[in-house]
Amino acid sequence: MRGIGDDCAVLRLPRGSELLVTTDLCIENVHFRRAWHPATAIGHRCITRGLSDIAAMGGHPLACFLSLGLPEGVPQSEGLPQSWVNGFLRGLLAQARRFKIPLAGGDISSARQITADIVVIGQVPAGTAVLRSGARPGDRLYVTGSLGGSAATLKQLFAGKKIKPSTSNTHFYPVPRIAAGSWLRERSLASAMIDLSDGLSVDLAHICEESRVTAIVDANKIPVSRGADLELALHGGEDYELLFTAPRRARVPALIAGTAVTEIGEIRNRKDYSSAIQILEDNGKVRPLPQRGWEHFARQT
Amino acid sequence: MRGIGDDCAVLRLPRGSELLVTTDLCIENVHFRRAWHPATAIGHRCITRGLSDIAAMGGHPLACFLSLGLPEGVPQSEGLPQSWVNGFLRGLLAQARRFKIPLAGGDISSARQITADIVVIGQVPAGTAVLRSGARPGDRLYVTGSLGGSAATLKQLFAGKKIKPSTSNTHFYPVPRIAAGSWLRERSLASAMIDLSDGLSVDLAHICEESRVTAIVDANKIPVSRGADLELALHGGEDYELLFTAPRRARVPALIAGTAVTEIGEIRNRKDYSSAIQILEDNGKVRPLPQRGWEHFARQT
Repeated sequence: MRGIGDDCAVLRLPRGSELLVTTDLCIENVHFRRAWHPATAIGHRCITRGLSDIAAMGGHPLACFLSLGLPEGVPQSEGLPQSWVNGFLRGLLAQARRFKIPLAGGDISSARQITADIVVIGQVPAGTAVLRSGARPGDRLYVTGSLGGSAATLKQLFAGKKIKPSTSNTHFYPVPRIAAGSWLRERSLASAMIDLSDGLSVDLAHICEESRVTAIVDANKIPVSRGADLELALHGGEDYELLFTAPRRARVPALIAGTAVTEIGEIRNRKDYSSAIQILEDNGKVRPLPQRGWEHFARQT
Repeated sequence: MRGIGDDCAVLRLPRGSELLVTTDLCIENVHFRRAWHPATAIGHRCITRGLSDIAAMGGHPLACFLSLGLPEGVPQSEGLPQSWVNGFLRGLLAQARRFKIPLAGGDISSARQITADIVVIGQVPAGTAVLRSGARPGDRLYVTGSLGGSAATLKQLFAGKKIKPSTSNTHFYPVPRIAAGSWLRERSLASAMIDLSDGLSVDLAHICEESRVTAIVDANKIPVSRGADLELALHGGEDYELLFTAPRRARVPALIAGTAVTEIGEIRNRKDYSSAIQILEDNGKVRPLPQRGWEHFARQT
């Protein structure tokens, strides 16, 4: 592969594979705050968003590209020290190394606020990408890991709490489920899949929309992260776990590639377009699940 | 191909081909000004930067992706009307249609200034991409089209002149040389190639650097655009013509895919790293060619 130093990066794909491409913008005070997030965590989160999209197709990452807009010539108080840029790149490149992909190109420019657009390229054997559109009535609904942990940390940050950004905290250093995603794809177990970036209620709605089905989620079964609650698990974003469906008779193990897997509900027939996703609550009652999902920082400030 | 509406776009490449990837940031007041450039021209220029990089490898474009940051919630005076966004997308998509590629995905976010990161994906038969590193001493140096036209218009804009942004003006609506680039690649005529985005003096230095050679340019032979002068042709950027080298005995036609081609100099042996690119002037004297190249708007304002 030829990377930085020519007009384009040149990559060769394995024979018989299809290309996956995903792009994600990370903008200061929209997706992160310098006061809350260390530079390494921002770099880590930035590339993880793209890796997680590759995981959601059951793919293997091949390379990443970074377009970076950085403030310059702004008043010193707003100025960006070189150490910040170094930290950001260190966090991004460490995560790239973990998944054995090169930073193969990109662009750089001055900008009023820190702007990072990450492109991740991946591959799957042709025809095997796990789409959002494959869920069928009767399929069971599963998630990897636990939910709400990232949103719980964010809630504390908003409340003014000082939080030490440890590398085990999923808000600061989330883990993309590349291994679990490709395990599921290799065995053709998942009929539909998405990554939980916007929150369960919103991302499940994407599967239902694309598959033209509806779903019922069992509140009791949702694996809520320590420190989170059901609301955060249902509507909090940025956990980067996988949400997938599998046929009723499929044997889905409780542990895939070292990650816990929990059955949390079922796909149902869509009677009409107004039929909402439902949630089965503790008290045995069923109510519609609103799509509240992830609120960006900008909306809250 | 599956595009917008899943976690990733899924693309199939022709058998035996290699993938080309290029990303380019376009930021308000750095790469364009709303007061000078109509929204359609900004969209057109944005995608053209990526297409031109594909052309410089001799490639065919396959798809594009757009990450777009747009101001919202800013004071009304700075606010962005929906008609601007529509015009930008109209310009970008019209150019995508001309080159028969889909907008296959992207991302959107709020941002303080208009920020567009364009990703263009292309392909070449494996092993045939024309790199910057293939120039050899004795090779002749060629350019497509004429040079300095974009910079001449920009100079007038800086001088406060009102310029009607006609679609025939290369500053507002540049043409990427996809057809000429792939014509050269198919015939293995070009030993090295780059697109003229930063200006001849800078882009030629990239070829020399990567190929470990030096070059001499004949000032008399440079095809200067109408309204431009030699300085603008040597150092002005954003013409998006192709600069390429070919072996001395190669038969390079004067017209390729409808575009004029001019021999402008020669590649020479690099004696040491301090040996500069030279220019042969009108008076028969040879002097070093400084790499001045393209100055971004931001530097000048």
